[in-house]
Amino acid sequence: MVAGKGQEYRRNLAGIAKGAGMIAPNMATMLGLLATDAYVEPNEIHNTLKRIADRSFNRIVVDGDMSTNDTLLLLANGDKYDIDAYHPVAFPFHATYIAEKLARDIVRDGEGATKFITLRIDGAPDNETARQIGNAIATSPLVKTAFYGGDANWGRIIAAAGRSGVAVDPAKMSLTFQSDDGKDALKLFEGGVPTQYDESAATALVKADSVTVILDCGMGSESATIWTCDLSHDYISINGHYRS
Amino acid sequence: MVAGKGQEYRRNLAGIAKGAGMIAPNMATMLGLLATDAYVEPNEIHNTLKRIADRSFNRIVVDGDMSTNDTLLLLANGDKYDIDAYHPVAFPFHATYIAEKLARDIVRDGEGATKFITLRIDGAPDNETARQIGNAIATSPLVKTAFYGGDANWGRIIAAAGRSGVAVDPAKMSLTFQSDDGKDALKLFEGGVPTQYDESAATALVKADSVTVILDCGMGSESATIWTCDLSHDYISINGHYRS
Repeated sequence: MVAGKGQEYRRNLAGIAKGAGMIAPNMATMLGLLATDAYVEPNEIHNTLKRIADRSFNRIVVDGDMSTNDTLLLLANGDKYDIDAYHPVAFPFHATYIAEKLARDIVRDGEGATKFITLRIDGAPDNETARQIGNAIATSPLVKTAFYGGDANWGRIIAAAGRSGVAVDPAKMSLTFQSDDGKDALKLFEGGVPTQYDESAATALVKADSVTVILDCGMGSESATIWTCDLSHDYISINGHYRS
Repeated sequence: MVAGKGQEYRRNLAGIAKGAGMIAPNMATMLGLLATDAYVEPNEIHNTLKRIADRSFNRIVVDGDMSTNDTLLLLANGDKYDIDAYHPVAFPFHATYIAEKLARDIVRDGEGATKFITLRIDGAPDNETARQIGNAIATSPLVKTAFYGGDANWGRIIAAAGRSGVAVDPAKMSLTFQSDDGKDALKLFEGGVPTQYDESAATALVKADSVTVILDCGMGSESATIWTCDLSHDYISINGHYRS
C-alpha cells in the first residue's frame, strides 16, 4: 500500500480511501469511496452511510486537525436488484467492516506515523463520554510523543483523561497495555496508583508496531474505540515545509 | 534566562515562574509565585489572583496538554500596611503586568519552541468565544508546524478557526500578520479569499523570532489574546524520550 491509501473488497462491496494528515473525528482531508452493485433505497443508503462513518472514519485521529473538505461516498448502481445483494443487516455490517479497515489504514499511513494505537475506553457512562475521553488522549502531543519514544508512560494517558472535560476519578480507573494479538497484557495503573508492573515488559508492548491501550474509567458499562498513531519527527518535517 | 524560568519585579511586587511543556489554558506543569509586602485582605487577594491568572497563565499554550499539578501563588506578608502599598486598581494592574510577562516567558522557553506567537482574536461576540477560536488555532499541530517551517500558511489558521466549534463565517474574516513592533503588517486573507499579498513579505514576518497574528472574525467587538509557540523537532525529541 502506498502512503495514505487503502482499498478493500468484501462481498458485493468495494472501498478505497486516501488520507494521511489533518485527520481527526469528523473526518479530515480524506477521500473515501465505497461502491456496491446492490440496489439500496436512497434514504436507506444515506442513513447507512452516516452509521458507517460514525463507526469508522469518525473514530480516527492522526493529528487532531480536521479538514473542511473531507468526502466519504457510498455509491450503489442498483445493478443487483435482489434481496441477497442488499440485506438490511448484512449490508451495513460488511460496509462497516470495509470502512473500519480503510479508516485504520489511513491511520497506519498517517503523516510520520511509526506506530498504530488502538485506544479502547471502557467503563464509561455512555458512548459519547467514552469518545470524549478517547479523543483527549488521542490528540495529546505528550501521549503521542511518548508512544513515538517507546515509553510506557501511563501518567500522560491518565493526565490526558483528566483534562478531557469529563469528571473522571483516577481511583476508579485502570489502564492496561495489550499486544494486538491479545496474548500479552499488562495492567499499569489501578486504584489511583501505578501497579508493580515489569517496566521491560511494558516497554516491549509499547515498542511494537501496534499496541492496544485499554482505559477502564469505572463509571459505567459503555465503550468506544479510537484508532490513532504517534507523533514523530517526520510529522514535523512533513508539515513544517509544505504549503497546504 | 534559563529554560522555562522567568522573573520580574515591579513596585512592591515580585514574581517568579517556571514552565516549559504541558502548557495550555488552565495552566500546566507550572510553578508561579507572586509576592508582595503590601497588606491585602485574604478575600481580596484570592479574587485578585483569579483575575490575574485568567489574564496571564490561562492565556498561554505550548502544546495543548495540561498538567494536574500547576501552582500559582500570590503571597502577601502584610508588611506594608498602608494605602499606597495596596491600591485596589494599581495592585491588580501591576500584578497582572508581572504575571503576563512571566506567562510570555514560559511560552518563549516552551519545549522546543523556536518562535513566539501573539495570537489576537478580534471581532468576536464575546471574550469566551474569542478564546475558544484562539485555543483551536494555538493547539493545531498544522498551524504550529507551519510557523516552525516559516510558512505564512493562512489556510491552516482559517481552517483551525473553522473547526473550533464556533460558527465562524470565512467571508467575514480577515487575517493579518504583523511584526511585534507593529511597523510591518500584511493582510493575507479577507472576505473569504486570500489577498494579493507579497509572499516574500509574509514569509519575512513569519520567519522572525516573534510574530503577531490578528484574526478578525467579523462577528462582534470582543477580543482575546493568546500567547503560543511553534511545534518543532526538538519538542518531539524532548518528549519522546523522557518519562514525566
